[in-house]
Amino acid sequence: MSDFEQHIKRYLDSQKNCLITDAMAYALDGGKRFRPRVIFSILKGFRIEEEKGYDSALALEMIQTYSLIHDDLPAMDNDDMRRGKPSLHKAFREDIAILAGDQLLTDSFRVVADSKSYHPETKISIISALSSYAGMAGMIYGQLLDVTTDSSSIDKEKLFEIQDNKTGGLFKIACLIPMYIAGIDRKDYFTRLGSMIGEIFQNQDDLFDLIKTEEEMGKNLSDAKNDKGTALSVYSLEELRKLIDDEFEELNEYLKDAVFDTRYLMELLNILKER
Amino acid sequence: MSDFEQHIKRYLDSQKNCLITDAMAYALDGGKRFRPRVIFSILKGFRIEEEKGYDSALALEMIQTYSLIHDDLPAMDNDDMRRGKPSLHKAFREDIAILAGDQLLTDSFRVVADSKSYHPETKISIISALSSYAGMAGMIYGQLLDVTTDSSSIDKEKLFEIQDNKTGGLFKIACLIPMYIAGIDRKDYFTRLGSMIGEIFQNQDDLFDLIKTEEEMGKNLSDAKNDKGTALSVYSLEELRKLIDDEFEELNEYLKDAVFDTRYLMELLNILKER
Repeated sequence: MSDFEQHIKRYLDSQKNCLITDAMAYALDGGKRFRPRVIFSILKGFRIEEEKGYDSALALEMIQTYSLIHDDLPAMDNDDMRRGKPSLHKAFREDIAILAGDQLLTDSFRVVADSKSYHPETKISIISALSSYAGMAGMIYGQLLDVTTDSSSIDKEKLFEIQDNKTGGLFKIACLIPMYIAGIDRKDYFTRLGSMIGEIFQNQDDLFDLIKTEEEMGKNLSDAKNDKGTALSVYSLEELRKLIDDEFEELNEYLKDAVFDTRYLMELLNILKER
Repeated sequence: MSDFEQHIKRYLDSQKNCLITDAMAYALDGGKRFRPRVIFSILKGFRIEEEKGYDSALALEMIQTYSLIHDDLPAMDNDDMRRGKPSLHKAFREDIAILAGDQLLTDSFRVVADSKSYHPETKISIISALSSYAGMAGMIYGQLLDVTTDSSSIDKEKLFEIQDNKTGGLFKIACLIPMYIAGIDRKDYFTRLGSMIGEIFQNQDDLFDLIKTEEEMGKNLSDAKNDKGTALSVYSLEELRKLIDDEFEELNEYLKDAVFDTRYLMELLNILKER
């Protein structure tokens, strides 16, 4: 188990022994921790040990996890499976899933507020970023666009707006957190960096989903995917591959202006290509 | 419109013009603002103007409102009405209600983090109190107890544990916020004060509900109330009246040790009797 996984385990062990903690543990299990790894790789580029990012990375992972729980609910996407196992409201109950999501969100702010790793001003900056970009300046607004956009009317601009809020929101936070910890003031640069990483992440995710599904099902599922509002509803497979290549190139250019050693972040992003 | 109501309106006006903001406005409308008034009356007892409490009172009211929205959902209490109008998931949609609740909770922390009224250390203390007592040290834990407790097995101790977490949690916050703003360090005293006020508030609420229902329906509904886990499931009407009188007396004693002028809080609590 990695050190960060042990950090998550210590957090869960410190919580009340009750059904909500069991549900939180179930939902937190099995994540790829990609957003935390963005935090750690930028921190390393600042020559700051990654342990310094554990509490805020945990908070971000808790917010990511709560959003999956609530997105899976019957009234939202109504997904019975998540990460190859029953989604939380199936494994537990729907009321417990709502409460466990609420608790993950609520407690993510306590984790940062009570952290021993940051100065009060840094905590406030991190909490402000979390609550803005996980909310109306990001994830929740993106989710609203997603549930209210008619999939037949979606175009490239609308798709980008949804992705840049829904997925990009938390990646913006993942880039801002190490900036705040390093005590650097380049908010525009790191917000844009998060936006670019989020865009590549989401497009790659849609691409791999499609390739995997096609391989498993032995047929082209792009039509079936159309109504899910993914990149494949507005791009052909080849256009999407080209888009991702262009986005990687643009990101490489952008990173030349970085104020941190970018090699760790580059290594992490290269993993994305090979998933 | 009171100054605090105008503060809530200014907050809503500053938000994105979208369905979630409409839903938040709908849900925030019509509250009695009792928890904010606890904050203001203690602040006045510290000779601090109540405006100083507006941002944290707004945050607390947002958390109270989100909890009502999620509690009313079909998977939870399945209540179609709230404050004499359709509950949020009936007036809007269930997915919008879940998202609006999530956004109220998320943004409550941003309201405190971005406030111009508090020092960073004070913000951290307030955020820590909000996330603890609205979470596993209070409201959410109380809600878990509520949805998992078999009403036939409920006794006075269990009922108190549910109330002291579910209702008491936010009242503890309402008492801690002015303490932090005043820069006083008597956490045990103010937490206990919140617990006592929450207990009286909840018992009075149950009592008035019953009296009102009996008057309207012209019959004794205490049996029907039994399965709702209110005070009337373990106390007779007369026992409950006596309990509340005793609790008021105990509170008056307790307030003799207060480090603030208690007359404003007393005035507010007396309103409770006459509701």
